[in-house]
Amino acid sequence: MTGDDTGAPARPVAIDTMGGDHAPEEIIAGAVTAVREHGVRLVLVGQAPRVRAELDRHGVTREIPIVHAEETLAMDEGALASWRKPRSSVAVACHLIKTGRASALVSAGTTAGVVATSRLRLKAQQGVLRPAIAVTLPTRPRPTVLLDSGATADVKPEALVQFAALGTAYAQVALGVERPRVGLLTIGAEPGKGNKVVRRAHELLAGGQHGIEFAGNVEGDDLLTGAVDVVVTDGFTGNVALKTMEGAARMAMAELQETLRSSTTAKMGALLQRRRLQALRDRLSSETYGGGVLLGLNGTVVIAHGASRARAITSACLLAHELAAGHIVERIRDQIAATRTSRFVLRLGEKADKEAKEAKEHRTEQEPPARPEPGP
Amino acid sequence: MTGDDTGAPARPVAIDTMGGDHAPEEIIAGAVTAVREHGVRLVLVGQAPRVRAELDRHGVTREIPIVHAEETLAMDEGALASWRKPRSSVAVACHLIKTGRASALVSAGTTAGVVATSRLRLKAQQGVLRPAIAVTLPTRPRPTVLLDSGATADVKPEALVQFAALGTAYAQVALGVERPRVGLLTIGAEPGKGNKVVRRAHELLAGGQHGIEFAGNVEGDDLLTGAVDVVVTDGFTGNVALKTMEGAARMAMAELQETLRSSTTAKMGALLQRRRLQALRDRLSSETYGGGVLLGLNGTVVIAHGASRARAITSACLLAHELAAGHIVERIRDQIAATRTSRFVLRLGEKADKEAKEAKEHRTEQEPPARPEPGP
Repeated sequence: MTGDDTGAPARPVAIDTMGGDHAPEEIIAGAVTAVREHGVRLVLVGQAPRVRAELDRHGVTREIPIVHAEETLAMDEGALASWRKPRSSVAVACHLIKTGRASALVSAGTTAGVVATSRLRLKAQQGVLRPAIAVTLPTRPRPTVLLDSGATADVKPEALVQFAALGTAYAQVALGVERPRVGLLTIGAEPGKGNKVVRRAHELLAGGQHGIEFAGNVEGDDLLTGAVDVVVTDGFTGNVALKTMEGAARMAMAELQETLRSSTTAKMGALLQRRRLQALRDRLSSETYGGGVLLGLNGTVVIAHGASRARAITSACLLAHELAAGHIVERIRDQIAATRTSRFVLRLGEKADKEAKEAKEHRTEQEPPARPEPGP
Repeated sequence: MTGDDTGAPARPVAIDTMGGDHAPEEIIAGAVTAVREHGVRLVLVGQAPRVRAELDRHGVTREIPIVHAEETLAMDEGALASWRKPRSSVAVACHLIKTGRASALVSAGTTAGVVATSRLRLKAQQGVLRPAIAVTLPTRPRPTVLLDSGATADVKPEALVQFAALGTAYAQVALGVERPRVGLLTIGAEPGKGNKVVRRAHELLAGGQHGIEFAGNVEGDDLLTGAVDVVVTDGFTGNVALKTMEGAARMAMAELQETLRSSTTAKMGALLQRRRLQALRDRLSSETYGGGVLLGLNGTVVIAHGASRARAITSACLLAHELAAGHIVERIRDQIAATRTSRFVLRLGEKADKEAKEAKEHRTEQEPPARPEPGP
């Protein structure tokens, strides 16, 4: 596996081996596969003796470096753990990123604990108001990125506009969509629909943001149709929508299995279909679409589902590597810089406009400098 | 069909014959069934010649009274239509309720138009901060009421507490649940989870509200498990969740049909199952669970789905009759009066408490009057 385009060798991805329902066994098994079969460079963070013992079992003790972390965020620990446990495996992994010894972090720990710890340790990127968790929904033919799915419950309109920037950069790097179409999640397709925050965000987005392809409002039933590449919402609504989706898919599958069972004629077919149905349910369940990616911090954090087994961890490692190799943090920096959202920036822009206008009125010498227009 | 328990004959339910994708034919067909087969008293509101012609076709011209309304809210008209069209069929039906000539209203017109018109004409019940739309979800074994599903996008915590009161009264009257368990929709089961509004609403509800059985926080994936009888949320989140649910169910069914089609062995079974699958999809689609009920106004408004055909309209008429006969408006009035939510009421309550405390300190004669406690 090669480094980035500067020719430097890629920094490794740090894996929190202690987070998740099946840690450390399944986490380490997944990491080993990522190294062996995909050539991803990793560093394993956690209680060194346990990690070493697992690596021994896989016969790769010397191939994968280990960084010791005394503490572990428990699966029932929330945000406060980030303060209480400064030497948790997540905190140590963040430190590796901060000091340039890792490019990204993968953890299957609790979302609340991982988000709080990485916000505290990595800090927000310059210009980013709030971080957001991007989740890739299993839509066809192309996936849809939903953000924020739970990092920031209360947002201002300007933060929603930034989420559009984060989502655009993410869809470009992770999904390879050149000009991702961004929809704003609301209730009703018309511009005037939604709550106050969304209505204002619509104005800001519809006004044109450099590099963001705004496709207008989308509704809850558009989430799974692949209507847009990126759906932007606050972390409260996004999390409710995501869990509602999972619940509805589960219910539909349960109902269906009931329907198949209840018909004698169908029983035979149902037996034959069981494997296919299982595959379908897996595709619609959160355990397979692989958790979320925390965007907007000085380092990329892939939050795998707590129930992740080895295969999901391997995917998470590949995604983290891909995002780091695609310079997601730098892409976000550039996109945020081009997005006119913060009040400060808006005020600066207005002041510049006013001055230019006055200069024009008084001197009528030349056009005021053009503000960035939407589109490339 | 008998009147209410005062022995007076029941006032008729007013039907907006002009609203809906299949108006007026299917609306009137549904109304005729409600009268003929269920003995519900109705009054049909709409363009009299067209309504009369339809009734002629059904051979019931003289049995069902008609009230003429010149105008109709178009299906693409939003909230502004309530001001532009003071003589729309919805506005005229509201007038019948206000003047005591109808007990409730059924319309399959646009939600935005029907909500705006009835808010304007019927006004909020005394003490009600904001109206809410209750939708009954197809959970098993018992249905769950979700509110608000779209009437009020921006709410204060006090309004969420009132929604708990509205939902309690509704579940009692419409579903016959004596002590409905109420959950607060948020992101995470712990009390501290959610956005600012929800966290404060949790405090108010957990503090105890007379007559409301608060069961704590619920998440998106609890909506369809029947975990609680009533789920309370703001109209923005509720609408997103409802549409997400519909979208997810549709996607799951489409995927499933694809899966069944793709297996040759299963094709035969699939043909046999088609009718069952159709029934399942219907159960999960919004067209069947019959729209919502706007609660909190001086009159009950049943908003049937825009795509409603005769059968859905008949159900809506029965529901409207049942709600009126169950004195839903009075139940809500009593429940709201018992709920300590508005700041004014809270302040009054605090003042009264303080005075009572001072009186006790100075005179130590008797206990201050007890404040209402949670529970019956």
